[in-house]
Amino acid sequence: MTVDRQRAMTAARAFHALHHGDEPLLLPNAWDYGSAAALIAAGFPAIGTTSLGVAVANGLPDGQGATRAETVALAHRLARLSCLYSVDIEGGFGGDPAGVAELVAELADAGAVGVNLEDGRPDGALAATSAQCARIAAIKARVPDLFVNARTDTHWLTAARPPVLADTIDRVRAYQAAGADGVFVPGLADPAEIGALARAVDAPLNVLFLPAGPTVRQLAELGVRRISTGSLLFRAAVHAAVATVRAIAAGRPVAPDIPSYAEMAELGRR
Amino acid sequence: MTVDRQRAMTAARAFHALHHGDEPLLLPNAWDYGSAAALIAAGFPAIGTTSLGVAVANGLPDGQGATRAETVALAHRLARLSCLYSVDIEGGFGGDPAGVAELVAELADAGAVGVNLEDGRPDGALAATSAQCARIAAIKARVPDLFVNARTDTHWLTAARPPVLADTIDRVRAYQAAGADGVFVPGLADPAEIGALARAVDAPLNVLFLPAGPTVRQLAELGVRRISTGSLLFRAAVHAAVATVRAIAAGRPVAPDIPSYAEMAELGRR
Repeated sequence: MTVDRQRAMTAARAFHALHHGDEPLLLPNAWDYGSAAALIAAGFPAIGTTSLGVAVANGLPDGQGATRAETVALAHRLARLSCLYSVDIEGGFGGDPAGVAELVAELADAGAVGVNLEDGRPDGALAATSAQCARIAAIKARVPDLFVNARTDTHWLTAARPPVLADTIDRVRAYQAAGADGVFVPGLADPAEIGALARAVDAPLNVLFLPAGPTVRQLAELGVRRISTGSLLFRAAVHAAVATVRAIAAGRPVAPDIPSYAEMAELGRR
Repeated sequence: MTVDRQRAMTAARAFHALHHGDEPLLLPNAWDYGSAAALIAAGFPAIGTTSLGVAVANGLPDGQGATRAETVALAHRLARLSCLYSVDIEGGFGGDPAGVAELVAELADAGAVGVNLEDGRPDGALAATSAQCARIAAIKARVPDLFVNARTDTHWLTAARPPVLADTIDRVRAYQAAGADGVFVPGLADPAEIGALARAVDAPLNVLFLPAGPTVRQLAELGVRRISTGSLLFRAAVHAAVATVRAIAAGRPVAPDIPSYAEMAELGRR
């Protein structure tokens, strides 16, 4: 076994272990090298990427399979940070099981320790459970160490599909049986439903942090093992940029604790 | 004259005119498509780019001529926003006058209406005035309509070069004589010096907004015609991302007015 291969296995194991510690893993999501470097510098043990952030930062639509090149390029850049990172690959960018597995192998070679694979399709429908299980199984067969976080969109963008918790439970159980290391249900907000889902599935349960929903502590008590910020940090960042120049225009003070040019330039050199 | 060429000339003239209105041009600086789209959506009539932001977002050093490809790619993406935008090309990415003019012609073809060209070199020294004038003249000869904002770094990162206002005046006058449409002196903060410089030069004076320095209104009264935010919005954005996840970790509320997923996704589709 090569040194690189050993290093990759050690990193993947460390990422798996973060889902089984005393506290749930709070996983902030970056969209470019700078946001990732800042989050790692702030002390977070691992990061994810946000497909919305990667898409909008590059002027592309989210969830439409349009950001494959940008996602792969970001995965290669993040390798330089020597951090644990998981990559959001949407639904796999349209690939069949072998194609998705090939993509994930490339991300793992770059240095990623995990991926998020969602069952929401570009048209808003959900992939067939069996087809999604085939993708998960293909990834695990190809890259066994990598943490596959299987996302179901039963509770996400639900205008055309009212959420049904029993369907969610069926899907995440099937995804775990296919090899998923964790399951992710964004949009789930009701504490009773979160608790029921955590009890119904053996794999670490990941939910999306919602500002109007339960706190990290409450989610921990409900049995959640991983808490993602999704696109929230990206949205907060863009919002802060606009708010800052609006404050300047109006003669109001800007935030007092914005990092200096030198501090930020240092992040680009990490 | 083609329709595209007429449209480009009209846009360039509109950008020039923003430097000669009743109020100075407050020019916010974007680093990617998403930040640009948000600033345009917020109502700003034009935007610049920030070389620090472009560099750190891509994990590259600023001011070292390392971001040419990323800068050109961003300029092409911003064209889709149908907005007035000026591109920070650092010192020209190492090109000789003809090479810099070629780069700027490519940016103008993409849709840019202006560029920032700085005389600070990667080693921290300043380019010879005559060499910088040759670059400016070459750009203007090649792309006459495009607004060339000639930046002098006499007052920027001055650890090894104490700033001398008389040198600044000599340089900006030479740059204007070579064809520059505006002059930019980042780091200038003293109101008396800003006023003296504005009186000493005919070209529109651009300064960098500094949170501890004069307000937009005070800068207007001192004769400043363009106020850039430089890397400040990028730094505020990255700071907000980190502050938001720290608030989540601590169980504190996040900012109440962060745009929704749907609002932000819409920006990616503009």
